[in-house]
Amino acid sequence: MLTKAPHLFDEATRVTAGDSRWQGRTSDDYWAFVGPFGGATAATILRALMEHPQAAGNPLALTVNYCAPIAQGDFDLDVRLVKANRSTQHWSVELTQAGSDVATLATAVFAERRPSWSHQLAPFPQTKPFEQTLPYAKIAAAWVKQYDFRFVEGEPNVGGGGSNTAPANAFSKLWIADRIPRKIDALSLVAMSDAFFARIFHARREIVPFGTVSLTTYFHADADDLAKEDITCVFGVADAKIFHKSYGDQNGELWSPEGRLLATTTQIGYFKA
Amino acid sequence: MLTKAPHLFDEATRVTAGDSRWQGRTSDDYWAFVGPFGGATAATILRALMEHPQAAGNPLALTVNYCAPIAQGDFDLDVRLVKANRSTQHWSVELTQAGSDVATLATAVFAERRPSWSHQLAPFPQTKPFEQTLPYAKIAAAWVKQYDFRFVEGEPNVGGGGSNTAPANAFSKLWIADRIPRKIDALSLVAMSDAFFARIFHARREIVPFGTVSLTTYFHADADDLAKEDITCVFGVADAKIFHKSYGDQNGELWSPEGRLLATTTQIGYFKA
Repeated sequence: MLTKAPHLFDEATRVTAGDSRWQGRTSDDYWAFVGPFGGATAATILRALMEHPQAAGNPLALTVNYCAPIAQGDFDLDVRLVKANRSTQHWSVELTQAGSDVATLATAVFAERRPSWSHQLAPFPQTKPFEQTLPYAKIAAAWVKQYDFRFVEGEPNVGGGGSNTAPANAFSKLWIADRIPRKIDALSLVAMSDAFFARIFHARREIVPFGTVSLTTYFHADADDLAKEDITCVFGVADAKIFHKSYGDQNGELWSPEGRLLATTTQIGYFKA
Repeated sequence: MLTKAPHLFDEATRVTAGDSRWQGRTSDDYWAFVGPFGGATAATILRALMEHPQAAGNPLALTVNYCAPIAQGDFDLDVRLVKANRSTQHWSVELTQAGSDVATLATAVFAERRPSWSHQLAPFPQTKPFEQTLPYAKIAAAWVKQYDFRFVEGEPNVGGGGSNTAPANAFSKLWIADRIPRKIDALSLVAMSDAFFARIFHARREIVPFGTVSLTTYFHADADDLAKEDITCVFGVADAKIFHKSYGDQNGELWSPEGRLLATTTQIGYFKA
């Protein structure tokens, strides 16, 4: 008998049981410095919604607010369908651990994606193919090991920086794939939308304390679109507009190799510098 | 005795009483075609948070999910401080009418904006001064009358469009002020971040059924910063990246006339075309 081990990402974002209350568990494979990789947390929340018996349609928008650190171990997801109509669903999710305060607060919109006039205005960024781009070798946190990052432009260059250097730009273009290939779905898109290295590391050319505070991702491809793409990597671009009074923004795009815009994302994060 | 009548915007976004439950009321002055102007609803929600006795710090991020139409009249705001620590607060707000389902679901992050390294990467878009730009005269919905829109580029040109024309671009640059001048604060920033005309109107060059589904705004200036700016208009840029299967995105920036980035915003909206 041939059995197939689940992908680490699917293990890391596994949820069990529940109607209004689901359970998940942090993954050592997707651990960051002081807590789980935020993209894995976001994907776990989205998975609880997508696997929910009442879920209808496709993820359209997801906002995740990281309220407090998540400790290693089990957590509960309080899932609530706040409002539904013929074509959209509005969800709210609260992540808690051992009955304590809310550690992560999320809202999501699901929608039936009906056929319409279609037009992609954003141009596909210039790039060379995934296969011709070198993998990024400087791996720090555990979660980074789970991805195959291949920078076409804006590879982080930390070490030469700090407060005495002129700020660098914060723009990056890179291929992102799961280290062990996994077909791109809405779950990996949301995780990858938090997988860009913090823009402050790029602008300062040094690693400083940083944490995502709020992340929003919009999905521009539904399950049918993604099934047709049948891809295991995306091309990502990320940039920042401002760092001010301990907070900075990030905006990003995730593209299929063929030049289809799959998701757009934005986040605001805390930094100490 | 000299009394000063409150600004229409402040009347429109007034909230009363309450600790966990606040009351507001839709404004005919800020009415759109089938409901209140979404920016006024967002600003009313933010006002309930800013006036909340437990509020600390400044608005950092606000996400508003428009779940269902709001009818003319009173509404309740269920306000909940989900999590707070030394420097941030996480809030959740549910807007309901007459005990029915949630019509609007919002999350907000407030933060103490401590001094830090500061760097603005985004360039201030080329423009001519507010005073030298002509007001936009084609007014439709009531809420549009409350603003002084002055297009520098990308004025909507609806009428020559439709499905048989090549899609136009969706980029706009414009001054936005309250019709009756009002000092720019976090409340007006959030309202103005929903005041760009729907990008689908620009791309299609025609008015089609449209509704914002989810709006996210990040604040890059705190109350002190805004007090120092002391301005009554902002320079806004807005664009879209994709329209696909009945949903399209928008991203925007709100700048001070002196070239300081005050807020960034993104939204996803439904359209029928």
